[in-house]
Amino acid sequence: MWVMDAATEARVPQKLTAKGQATRARILEHAAELIYTKGVHATNNEQLRRAAGVSGSQLNHYFPTKESLVLAVIEWQAERVLTFHRSERFTHFDSLDSLREWAGYYIAYERSYQEGCSLGSLASEIIKTDLDVRTELANAFEQWRDIFRDGLERMQKSGRISNDADPTRLAYLLLSAFQGGMLLAQVARDIAPLKNALQAAIDHVQTFAMPPAAGVHEDVD
Amino acid sequence: MWVMDAATEARVPQKLTAKGQATRARILEHAAELIYTKGVHATNNEQLRRAAGVSGSQLNHYFPTKESLVLAVIEWQAERVLTFHRSERFTHFDSLDSLREWAGYYIAYERSYQEGCSLGSLASEIIKTDLDVRTELANAFEQWRDIFRDGLERMQKSGRISNDADPTRLAYLLLSAFQGGMLLAQVARDIAPLKNALQAAIDHVQTFAMPPAAGVHEDVD
Repeated sequence: MWVMDAATEARVPQKLTAKGQATRARILEHAAELIYTKGVHATNNEQLRRAAGVSGSQLNHYFPTKESLVLAVIEWQAERVLTFHRSERFTHFDSLDSLREWAGYYIAYERSYQEGCSLGSLASEIIKTDLDVRTELANAFEQWRDIFRDGLERMQKSGRISNDADPTRLAYLLLSAFQGGMLLAQVARDIAPLKNALQAAIDHVQTFAMPPAAGVHEDVD
Repeated sequence: MWVMDAATEARVPQKLTAKGQATRARILEHAAELIYTKGVHATNNEQLRRAAGVSGSQLNHYFPTKESLVLAVIEWQAERVLTFHRSERFTHFDSLDSLREWAGYYIAYERSYQEGCSLGSLASEIIKTDLDVRTELANAFEQWRDIFRDGLERMQKSGRISNDADPTRLAYLLLSAFQGGMLLAQVARDIAPLKNALQAAIDHVQTFAMPPAAGVHEDVD
C-alpha cells in the first residue's frame, strides 16, 4: 500500500485523492508539531483531531494505529531535515564555510534548545518503545551521515582538506556533536553546549585544512 | 525531608531505619534497571512491585508519586555515572591515555548500543514531559562536563596540552560526542557511531598535545 516516492516528499498512499492527500498532510503536519513540542506519549488522538480539525473516523482512516502515525511523522521529519541539509544554502558541505554556516543556523535557531532536534528527540523518545520504527530511524540517520561524509570526501578531492582526514569518522563526529549538543542544550535550556560542541567539531575538521597554495590533489583514492 | 549527602550516595530520607533504607534502595535499583531497559513510560507500578518484591503500600510509602521515583532514579544514575568517571581508573582525566581508556570502556560495553547512556537516555525520554526534574538533570550534566574540563585544565597545567586549547569547548565536545554517539549507536544497533565519534573527539584533543620535551609550563594562568 505504501510506495517510495523518489521526490523529497514523504511516502503517501497512492490511492488517495488530491483532497485525501491534503487531509492526510494536514494531520501529519499537526502530529509532527505536537510530537515535537510535547513528545509521542503526551500526544493523543483528541489533541490531534482538534489541532488538525478532523473527525475521529478521518484520523482513523489515514492513520489506523499510533505506530502508523509515528512512522509517518518519522518519514516526514527525516525528509525535512535531509532536504534542508541538501539545500543550496550548504553547497553540499563542500567547504569549511558551509559547515560553519550550518552550525550558525542551529546555534541561532530558538527551538534548538527548547525542543531539540526534530528527528533526534523523536528517536530518543521512541527507541525503547515497542513501536517498530527503528529501521526507518536508522535509515534516516545513515542518510544524514552520508551528506556530511560526501561533503568531506568532496573537500578532499578538491584539496581543501588533507587525505589524512577520515570522512566517515568526521561525519560521525559532526552528527554526534549535533545530537549530543542538542540534548545537553535542551536539558540546560541554554544553547552553550550545542555551540561549543559544534564549534569544536568543526575546529577538528579545520585541523585537516590544506593551504590554498597546495592546489588540487588529483591522486585522491 | 531530603538532605544532600556529601558522600557519593544518592540522597536518602534521613528518618528511614536501616531496614527502610535497604527496602528503598532495592526499589530504586529495580526502578533504575526497568527504566533503563524499557523507558519511563513503559515502567509501571506492578512491574516494579514484582521486580523489587515489595507491596503496593511499601512502594507508595517510599515513592508516593511517579515524579518522586523518577527524581530518585535520576539522582541514582547521576551518582553512578559521576562516581565512575571520578574513579581512579581514569586518573581524573589528566592525560590523553585516560580519555582513550574511557572511550575504550564504552566502546566495549555491550549495553552502550543496546540501551544507550543510563542518564542521557533517561534525559531524552523525560525532557518533554511534565515531570519537574530538569534542574536535577542539568546539574548532573554540568558536573559531568566539569570532570572533563578539570582534567583538560590539569593537562594544560602539566604541559601535556597547549594553552591554545579551550577546556570548556573540548569538554562539551567530549560529552556531546558521547551522548550523540550513544543515541546513533542505539538507533543503528551498532557501536560504530559511538566509536567513531569518541575517537574523533579525542583525536581533536590530541591536536593540542605538546611534545614531552616541551616540559611543564609553570606560567599557566
